[in-house]
Amino acid sequence: MASNSLGRIFRITTAGESHGPGLGVIIDGCPPGIEIDIDYIQHELDRRRPGQSHISSQRKESDKITIQSGVYQGKSTGAPILILIPNEDSRSSDYDHVEQAYRPSHADFTYHKKYGTRDHRGGGRSSARETVNWVAAGAIAKLILKKEGVNINAGVTKVGDLQLNAEIDSYDFIEAEKNVVRCPDRAMAIQMQELIEQIKKEGDTVGGVITCVVNGCPIGLGEPVFHKLHADLGQAMLSINACKGFEFGSGFEGSRMRGSQHNDIFEKDGEVIVTKTNHSGGIQGGISNGMPVYFRAAFKPVSTIMKDQNSVDTSGEEISYRGKGRHDPCVVPRAVAIVEALTALVLVDHLLMSKIYSNFQFSPDTNMD
Amino acid sequence: MASNSLGRIFRITTAGESHGPGLGVIIDGCPPGIEIDIDYIQHELDRRRPGQSHISSQRKESDKITIQSGVYQGKSTGAPILILIPNEDSRSSDYDHVEQAYRPSHADFTYHKKYGTRDHRGGGRSSARETVNWVAAGAIAKLILKKEGVNINAGVTKVGDLQLNAEIDSYDFIEAEKNVVRCPDRAMAIQMQELIEQIKKEGDTVGGVITCVVNGCPIGLGEPVFHKLHADLGQAMLSINACKGFEFGSGFEGSRMRGSQHNDIFEKDGEVIVTKTNHSGGIQGGISNGMPVYFRAAFKPVSTIMKDQNSVDTSGEEISYRGKGRHDPCVVPRAVAIVEALTALVLVDHLLMSKIYSNFQFSPDTNMD
Amino acid sequence: MASNSLGRIFRITTAGESHGPGLGVIIDGCPPGIEIDIDYIQHELDRRRPGQSHISSQRKESDKITIQSGVYQGKSTGAPILILIPNEDSRSSDYDHVEQAYRPSHADFTYHKKYGTRDHRGGGRSSARETVNWVAAGAIAKLILKKEGVNINAGVTKVGDLQLNAEIDSYDFIEAEKNVVRCPDRAMAIQMQELIEQIKKEGDTVGGVITCVVNGCPIGLGEPVFHKLHADLGQAMLSINACKGFEFGSGFEGSRMRGSQHNDIFEKDGEVIVTKTNHSGGIQGGISNGMPVYFRAAFKPVSTIMKDQNSVDTSGEEISYRGKGRHDPCVVPRAVAIVEALTALVLVDHLLMSKIYSNFQFSPDTNMD
Amino acid sequence: MASNSLGRIFRITTAGESHGPGLGVIIDGCPPGIEIDIDYIQHELDRRRPGQSHISSQRKESDKITIQSGVYQGKSTGAPILILIPNEDSRSSDYDHVEQAYRPSHADFTYHKKYGTRDHRGGGRSSARETVNWVAAGAIAKLILKKEGVNINAGVTKVGDLQLNAEIDSYDFIEAEKNVVRCPDRAMAIQMQELIEQIKKEGDTVGGVITCVVNGCPIGLGEPVFHKLHADLGQAMLSINACKGFEFGSGFEGSRMRGSQHNDIFEKDGEVIVTKTNHSGGIQGGISNGMPVYFRAAFKPVSTIMKDQNSVDTSGEEISYRGKGRHDPCVVPRAVAIVEALTALVLVDHLLMSKIYSNFQFSPDTNMD
Repeated sequence: MASNSLGRIFRITTAGESHGPGLGVIIDGCPPGIEIDIDYIQHELDRRRPGQSHISSQRKESDKITIQSGVYQGKSTGAPILILIPNEDSRSSDYDHVEQAYRPSHADFTYHKKYGTRDHRGGGRSSARETVNWVAAGAIAKLILKKEGVNINAGVTKVGDLQLNAEIDSYDFIEAEKNVVRCPDRAMAIQMQELIEQIKKEGDTVGGVITCVVNGCPIGLGEPVFHKLHADLGQAMLSINACKGFEFGSGFEGSRMRGSQHNDIFEKDGEVIVTKTNHSGGIQGGISNGMPVYFRAAFKPVSTIMKDQNSVDTSGEEISYRGKGRHDPCVVPRAVAIVEALTALVLVDHLLMSKIYSNFQFSPDTNMD
Repeated sequence: MASNSLGRIFRITTAGESHGPGLGVIIDGCPPGIEIDIDYIQHELDRRRPGQSHISSQRKESDKITIQSGVYQGKSTGAPILILIPNEDSRSSDYDHVEQAYRPSHADFTYHKKYGTRDHRGGGRSSARETVNWVAAGAIAKLILKKEGVNINAGVTKVGDLQLNAEIDSYDFIEAEKNVVRCPDRAMAIQMQELIEQIKKEGDTVGGVITCVVNGCPIGLGEPVFHKLHADLGQAMLSINACKGFEFGSGFEGSRMRGSQHNDIFEKDGEVIVTKTNHSGGIQGGISNGMPVYFRAAFKPVSTIMKDQNSVDTSGEEISYRGKGRHDPCVVPRAVAIVEALTALVLVDHLLMSKIYSNFQFSPDTNMD
Repeated sequence: MASNSLGRIFRITTAGESHGPGLGVIIDGCPPGIEIDIDYIQHELDRRRPGQSHISSQRKESDKITIQSGVYQGKSTGAPILILIPNEDSRSSDYDHVEQAYRPSHADFTYHKKYGTRDHRGGGRSSARETVNWVAAGAIAKLILKKEGVNINAGVTKVGDLQLNAEIDSYDFIEAEKNVVRCPDRAMAIQMQELIEQIKKEGDTVGGVITCVVNGCPIGLGEPVFHKLHADLGQAMLSINACKGFEFGSGFEGSRMRGSQHNDIFEKDGEVIVTKTNHSGGIQGGISNGMPVYFRAAFKPVSTIMKDQNSVDTSGEEISYRGKGRHDPCVVPRAVAIVEALTALVLVDHLLMSKIYSNFQFSPDTNMD
Repeated sequence: MASNSLGRIFRITTAGESHGPGLGVIIDGCPPGIEIDIDYIQHELDRRRPGQSHISSQRKESDKITIQSGVYQGKSTGAPILILIPNEDSRSSDYDHVEQAYRPSHADFTYHKKYGTRDHRGGGRSSARETVNWVAAGAIAKLILKKEGVNINAGVTKVGDLQLNAEIDSYDFIEAEKNVVRCPDRAMAIQMQELIEQIKKEGDTVGGVITCVVNGCPIGLGEPVFHKLHADLGQAMLSINACKGFEFGSGFEGSRMRGSQHNDIFEKDGEVIVTKTNHSGGIQGGISNGMPVYFRAAFKPVSTIMKDQNSVDTSGEEISYRGKGRHDPCVVPRAVAIVEALTALVLVDHLLMSKIYSNFQFSPDTNMD
């Protein structure tokens, strides 16, 4: 059934396959009067683009967008915005040999069983090519959030066994944009890059973790009980291809702690109420509390490896299969832009939701007096 | 805005606070003809009930349900089912001293800021008392799933630093129901129980992890791209009070691995296609592949501790606060029933979704010939 | 599938049958801080109540509500509000003779075929008893709207061939509440009452039309293209039992007119832009324009008549059937409260939607400069 | 907020303006394996196309579609289908004189007030150009319905005062496709055509009514209580530009009748249960009963007339305004294709919903034994 939409107020609906004519996303619910900065959207797409460095897939896509609707004289009108992104360099012949194969840990088997048919070329709809839609739409969400003072930064904090153990507030996100791994620490970035180069040479792949930090998130975003801010963020992250886990604040590590260690003590910082520690990850009871929101998303190694593997084909025969085509040895450097985009989409949806009661005569502020 | 519903085909909408007259849930979309076994629903509620052991909260609630609608002569009619659960033992006076306090790591501050008002008694809507609604509705979901051969079992696999390291298929879920911790391993259960007793004595609390395993899940559940099976499971788990993280299959550990280690090789088991390993956690491309589905949810330590803590009150004054009332030193033993219930709600929703194309003349089976 | 919810921001989800223990409605998305005036809710339910006059059904229901949640110290908290209304005077034995019958123009046949089972007592879920949920929830919606200056009035403008031909702005809605027919014209009310009494004596029933007028509706409610204000109003009205048609503004009559007659000329009334005529019914392009919103809903005659009719039973046998029990000879006098309630539910949903962009820095007002 | 989607299982989301680069629609939830017959889609678009006769707008649009996704080797894959339709002949300069004007009975005023900005060219998003999206998507819905034996036919049954009074089952829908008015009666078609020609000559416009008949609709479509089949049809019809009213079965006329006249007596036709009359319009209790479904939609006269009219501009000045550009003197002949398309979209959504319980072990059929 219909399942290609994310969000309720600011909602995206997406379409497109890896090797079809192109991708497309309708952004429904964008407020009117937003300046739609095409260069910025393109810049965000460049951060996700294949071929951006020697450690990413060499598929050549310019990802030049076309806006079909919803923008007039450079600004959003309140009407739905349809963005198109063409596929320019799909080499479908690279996939001829997998037309009948169920590639290990790919979605070939499940798509075939679910739909009875599939577009095998480049993984069809299951390809991460889809994420260009998210990054394009997320760029508009980011433009809105920036005006409201909300800033989103993600970086690679783990590749294989290499883990950045620094405090979150010491992350250098300007540095992250300078190195090909997008690690917010220069020394660690170099190690990670060497590891990825080595693994690529071996024809293998490796997983990693992305940490995302949101500064300036206003108090009050998140809707109990089934649209808690972290639950919506989690669902969004888990929608990314290869994502295997999500945790916010203290996360899995928090499960080892005592209440007396874990509790975030409230205190005053001038007139503002803050917490001494931030194990809550900026979210309490599903609602943002004004502290930085942060979370981590875990990614498995890319399934396509340049090594022989056994498998089964659509007729049930056992086969040997080996990856061809252009693939990433490690997906996390390019996934940074995707993580930020989805975060922006979730936040702008909740930000607009929170406006429902503002300027309303029964608003919280009125009642607090 | 409206945010108290979960599911699309089989959807629950919930209401109720910790210290109001009671809780209520409307189950909309339950198929007709389902035998509604009240004893079974009550049994599930008993697994979640406070006061069930010396290591859980001593609040006394019988949680006896009343069914208001949607059931006729013991069977569902297809009309919405309204279930009521009363609050019998709410001691609101236990909360008089927190009426103006923002308790550390509770939702007091965020609810107050978001809504401008709050029912402070027992945490009001932010209380885990809400989860009786989920367990009652989840019991009906489980009844449907059982008839379709789907079995859901969860157990406590970590408390503080005590972690069960056994293979998932060696978990003894019958044992889990026999010990007060609900750990699927007898020896570990004893250690965990001792730890929780010790922590309780100290007036402190501790976190933990629950692992859930689904056997018999049919191939094809999950809807790309924004209702992937694991994304919907993740959102559901992250809706549980105190849940800080979710991972499925190899999870965060998978991010350390190479593709050549992580890939699940397809092979034949008689006529059935299975995978040699199950790092995918039974889900590939967001769709179940017929292997066991498994995932883990991490819970932080309960915020209410019987120790003095500093905080701030609603007027911005710094205060000292100490927990009163009846609370769990560790939430995971009781949360096992909640995890199973939400899992059942997500699965039955996807199971019914998957029926949309069955018996349809353009069904997958037809096309595969 | 789940289909018992109305609205998106302010959403109701309902449950209950005619002869079960009672009805229930969850109002999700009610803003915090609303004074919940129980007397007012009860007053609205009294307007819908059976037994209120000699020309309505003689079933005796006090319709005394219980609020289970979402209200604290007399005000809404932002949490979902669960309202319960008991069934006190269901005489199920009146329906023993129809357990196997498909009553003409009732929902017996279609419910049985769709669900394979049904609660035949009083029509079960298909009964208009369900509308107590709507009136209770609608009363809260009306309380919110009144504070914003929006007033909703409906009245009976047609019974059988008796039609009130006065101009809409001459309707006397104070008078409408004084006569048993709820016609906003005293002279016509007397004629209508006599007609209904005559028809009741014959054991027959008759249809009618309700006209609803909304004054004070702010400019800008309604969301193109699939949630136009009149489209949402139409869907709501067509959800009422026995409703067969909906028209707004000039309606069906407008289809006979020329553009030069029908167009509503804009002009200034002081500083305000108004229209000279109001064939648009206060809605242009799906969005309210500040003029009074008005529409009509047509109701068929009640299907239960005290006369012999042929029919078929569940085993396919042809039978003769005659109505028993307590029924309305004409449904429109009681349906006035239902029409107003649903109108309020649609309007409050759109009113809250319209707040999304207010107080937003990219708001319409800012951009108009 | 997001409001440009219709349907829940088979859902369309649309975008595009009258004078932008083009229109686009994403069809989400189309079952896999459907043969996507482009010629048929194009044929349906031709029935809606401007310039198809001398009594329609002379704008020249080929409406040649491009399918971007969701179709592989001529069949649907289950992935979302994105269809693009370009704007080729938008003469925006025709609208230069209305940039500041609020045209009478158009959406200029309300869009401007709601969004603070608008694309004035050709009415922007409020233009009926949007309906190409609906017709393209509706053609695919029709293809699915045809395979299931469901046939939808609409025709013009009223223009101004000229009303076709024949019985519905005597309508000649083959004839309707042969005359420029699309009236299912040859003699009446000639009269209607003459009337429209006369009105066009006068620079005026006229309204009309379309009647739609669905044959072969299976029993059981429609979801009480808020997605009754006729309520969803009503909302869809009222979404069409210029639609002012909707009635099904006996409709407004039914409100004049007695129960003893109006009730549809059940009887056997061989083994099938049918009704003697069909005042119910094939829908009882919101659920289809197997009889033909029929309804009527009323359309106001087109607002753009070639005559001087007074109005007000955006600065509040009173102005005189006269229509320019290419417009329809009567919208109903072209709206026939739109009515059929939306009907198909609503029906296919409900048809797929009804499949949820089919092939389910607790299905209605099982329970009826």
